[in-house]
Amino acid sequence: MKITNIGFIGGDMRIVHLIQMYANEEYNIRVFGFEKYNFESMENITICKELSDVISDSDILIGPVPFTSNYETLNAPFSANTININDILIETKPNQLLICGRVDAKLQEMFHENSVRYIDILSREEFAVLNAISTSEGALQIAMEHTNCTLHNSEVLVLGFGRIGKILCKMLDGIGAKVYCEARKFSDLAWIKAYGYTPILLNDLEENIPKFNLFINTIPYIVFDKNKIDKMHEDAIFIDLASKPGGIDLDYAKEKQIKTILGLSLPGKVAPFTAANHMKETIDNIIGEQ
Amino acid sequence: MKITNIGFIGGDMRIVHLIQMYANEEYNIRVFGFEKYNFESMENITICKELSDVISDSDILIGPVPFTSNYETLNAPFSANTININDILIETKPNQLLICGRVDAKLQEMFHENSVRYIDILSREEFAVLNAISTSEGALQIAMEHTNCTLHNSEVLVLGFGRIGKILCKMLDGIGAKVYCEARKFSDLAWIKAYGYTPILLNDLEENIPKFNLFINTIPYIVFDKNKIDKMHEDAIFIDLASKPGGIDLDYAKEKQIKTILGLSLPGKVAPFTAANHMKETIDNIIGEQ
Amino acid sequence: MKITNIGFIGGDMRIVHLIQMYANEEYNIRVFGFEKYNFESMENITICKELSDVISDSDILIGPVPFTSNYETLNAPFSANTININDILIETKPNQLLICGRVDAKLQEMFHENSVRYIDILSREEFAVLNAISTSEGALQIAMEHTNCTLHNSEVLVLGFGRIGKILCKMLDGIGAKVYCEARKFSDLAWIKAYGYTPILLNDLEENIPKFNLFINTIPYIVFDKNKIDKMHEDAIFIDLASKPGGIDLDYAKEKQIKTILGLSLPGKVAPFTAANHMKETIDNIIGEQ
Amino acid sequence: MKITNIGFIGGDMRIVHLIQMYANEEYNIRVFGFEKYNFESMENITICKELSDVISDSDILIGPVPFTSNYETLNAPFSANTININDILIETKPNQLLICGRVDAKLQEMFHENSVRYIDILSREEFAVLNAISTSEGALQIAMEHTNCTLHNSEVLVLGFGRIGKILCKMLDGIGAKVYCEARKFSDLAWIKAYGYTPILLNDLEENIPKFNLFINTIPYIVFDKNKIDKMHEDAIFIDLASKPGGIDLDYAKEKQIKTILGLSLPGKVAPFTAANHMKETIDNIIGEQ
Repeated sequence: MKITNIGFIGGDMRIVHLIQMYANEEYNIRVFGFEKYNFESMENITICKELSDVISDSDILIGPVPFTSNYETLNAPFSANTININDILIETKPNQLLICGRVDAKLQEMFHENSVRYIDILSREEFAVLNAISTSEGALQIAMEHTNCTLHNSEVLVLGFGRIGKILCKMLDGIGAKVYCEARKFSDLAWIKAYGYTPILLNDLEENIPKFNLFINTIPYIVFDKNKIDKMHEDAIFIDLASKPGGIDLDYAKEKQIKTILGLSLPGKVAPFTAANHMKETIDNIIGEQ
Repeated sequence: MKITNIGFIGGDMRIVHLIQMYANEEYNIRVFGFEKYNFESMENITICKELSDVISDSDILIGPVPFTSNYETLNAPFSANTININDILIETKPNQLLICGRVDAKLQEMFHENSVRYIDILSREEFAVLNAISTSEGALQIAMEHTNCTLHNSEVLVLGFGRIGKILCKMLDGIGAKVYCEARKFSDLAWIKAYGYTPILLNDLEENIPKFNLFINTIPYIVFDKNKIDKMHEDAIFIDLASKPGGIDLDYAKEKQIKTILGLSLPGKVAPFTAANHMKETIDNIIGEQ
Repeated sequence: MKITNIGFIGGDMRIVHLIQMYANEEYNIRVFGFEKYNFESMENITICKELSDVISDSDILIGPVPFTSNYETLNAPFSANTININDILIETKPNQLLICGRVDAKLQEMFHENSVRYIDILSREEFAVLNAISTSEGALQIAMEHTNCTLHNSEVLVLGFGRIGKILCKMLDGIGAKVYCEARKFSDLAWIKAYGYTPILLNDLEENIPKFNLFINTIPYIVFDKNKIDKMHEDAIFIDLASKPGGIDLDYAKEKQIKTILGLSLPGKVAPFTAANHMKETIDNIIGEQ
Repeated sequence: MKITNIGFIGGDMRIVHLIQMYANEEYNIRVFGFEKYNFESMENITICKELSDVISDSDILIGPVPFTSNYETLNAPFSANTININDILIETKPNQLLICGRVDAKLQEMFHENSVRYIDILSREEFAVLNAISTSEGALQIAMEHTNCTLHNSEVLVLGFGRIGKILCKMLDGIGAKVYCEARKFSDLAWIKAYGYTPILLNDLEENIPKFNLFINTIPYIVFDKNKIDKMHEDAIFIDLASKPGGIDLDYAKEKQIKTILGLSLPGKVAPFTAANHMKETIDNIIGEQ
């Protein structure tokens, strides 16, 4: 299937960047829900007055990431009016493809009931990897802003060697930090060694805690319980990149006056233009697969 | 289970290094099948005259990697006499653990029939990763020896981004080469980009071939067929690290006078001492798990 | 000469860190001019009531960096009272060594007239190199804070390949940026290539300007005149690390709405503790030389 | 001065590569002294029968590197007959420029007496830097060939942090070695630290010797005397890249059975094509300066 018409409905600044990038390629672009942003001057962009106009003429529809926060209206900060999800479900035809973000079980059911073909961009592995780049760089920025040492020559402990852990270790090493990484699997420890970092087994974690002033966590469950927090240096900083519940007992850390910084949704915050680029790369892959 | 007695039966120079390393730790070491190597001077090593002696007193038995090439006798180049597999199978008791290499379906059946508990070190993920380090460095050595350019500033195409591909790209980049890597999966391409190499999609491979003088293949099937070989520069070199059938049509490459170099079993060849180290690290993990 | 007594007179937070570090080693530490900081609890530190006390018993005196800004009183932000330079000059004996910062021609004359032996820490090459680490990392932080892209995969142009240029290029490369470096000397261009960055000759600079969104300057004279500013992308950011007059025509840049950020005295601002460490390393070298 | 005619007189395989590279650009190429190499098929190359032909029509003359080993005849391995230096000196006109290699005091005098303008390519700083790349990579190849360990994860001691030392450390680090570097100047130690290697002061060298298995020397005087050799591990390998007298007491090392490998003139040996490239880059710079 040849894709020539792309429709955009709602979304934040990243989607605005995305629209501008696609407008520079050979697509016909229709947008709805961007009254508060001035696209007037761009040649290839048709600004639709009606939702039905943008849907009826598009091969692919691109929606917000995340799509909604209430299952009724779209996340559309640049729209003058609220956009009802229901209106989209009704208008969309079975041969169209909707690309958007965070399609959970409930949203999935709504799409199925209305025979809406969709792809959740957040479930694409390549997007997760690209996002991990921005998250890692954002973590470095946070670390620089909250410490009175350089990262260069600092000993830093990264918890977890998944997507973010891998890229974070590489960047920290690249800037000159002494990188330690905690992991569980023997194969991960072998990888950590292969890449030139110092592996720390979970079993050896506790005794190693006192020597670090900077911890960056990527593991989405409480690794740092009371026992481990008690071992931390009083000036240590704990940057938590993992989604809830995060990797540290926040209440106890507060009680012990350990500085804890949450770094969530970093890609959109620290580098919205790059985030849009990563979306585009992923959507281009999806288009190529159609 | 506390491991205190380790028995070694047969094996090559890597196993000899391994014995020496374990003899420096707090284990009782018994060896059989090393008459051609002089262990006499080392204190902690008991040289057994009978196979039954080494087996009866060991918690763990360590055999050759690979274990056998004929299913009858052990790979034991330092042994004065042939060692029959059958004798080992009979002597080994169910509570003992045999660690050795390349246990294929047939060998597996022989072990099962005789209730021999075993672990194939080659099936351990961490050993595969560690081996990939030695293989990658061996590939660099081959490339240096067979080209009249430096790798520094050369454009090199690595085929495949599995274990070896990942480490090979990192080393080539580290020495200053311009690294390109061909992969299939979009997520691999994202990783290649994340690490700072240039990704090449399989679909774009053919058109990119003429610009490279050095190819290093890690994919175990014929990627370079006649069409692709026809695109190669006449001075290009193709180093093949993949096991049979390898990644290139060897007959056609020969006909076209493309220089092809097979790099198989590199860890034992280029760095036997490191290979022994990697074995030890893996066996230590196995011992820890018991 | 064996150094056992070190006296500290005035100075900022870096000197405070420095005092704490030396107090953990086997020196007798006397301090004067730190009434606003609480050193009471530290065992090895003697707090002097009189300037003459700290001077008379010290082998080495460590003063502020910079020493003064008015040639009359010391830079002593933690002192309850002003400290007169003259009092120091009179008390100091010829066998003592004063280590401090920014001894310009006028200060030099004052020291000579009073036979004060001194070393200006800012004139030590190793200190300049170590400072360049902190400056470079500070520049990365500024770049991250002021752009909406990741540095990873960005094309960045560094102007100059002196101390800061060298370390900056390495860190940018380490975090995944595409690093270009402008230099004049052919040998610098060879070095830039050797390190894997892309060299840009001064003669080729102008035509290359439009493709960069981020410039980091380390050259202390106006390289970016009106002609070059006219070539800059409207969204480009110019970070200037060079001391006056800096590397860009600031007035014209402002007129053209090019975002320019001055990054001066970064080590003390972004990483005061590391700055103190670098001072200590240099002072240890000086002590070793006595 | 616009250079359009380049004459080549004698030289080895690197010069042959060089001729081929210049023949692909817009120059008129004349060659003399290459009867044993077949240039016939290349369009832009005029093969001269007489020395005077190549000289009279050339703006620039390129000679061998090194130019001579006996001050009478040219180093011209591809020439059918010997070429007398005297004939060249007589024919060359004052407005011509001779580019060649290793012009020592004696040769310098001969050129002056005959009013021959010349540039010794070996005295060009950028050529020295580029050559250091090839030398460093050659040293890695030697190290790989002579050890039974991988460089990855090995502890390696580089002696000296000049041109070769700098690039060697970077490559070793890039391949995953643990890099230590011995230097004398505090500022060099600061640079070594800035780049992430471990500095070793000359004073601390002796006590550190036992822990290394691989030494690579770049310092052109005997650092490793008997005392230091006595401290070396019996399996240690010493690769000497420094010109005479080299950095180790060779006789004593032999007596103690320490494996010593001389790595001289590596660029032409390990990567002749790259060496030619580096020559070309330097000659292009020289041409640009005319």
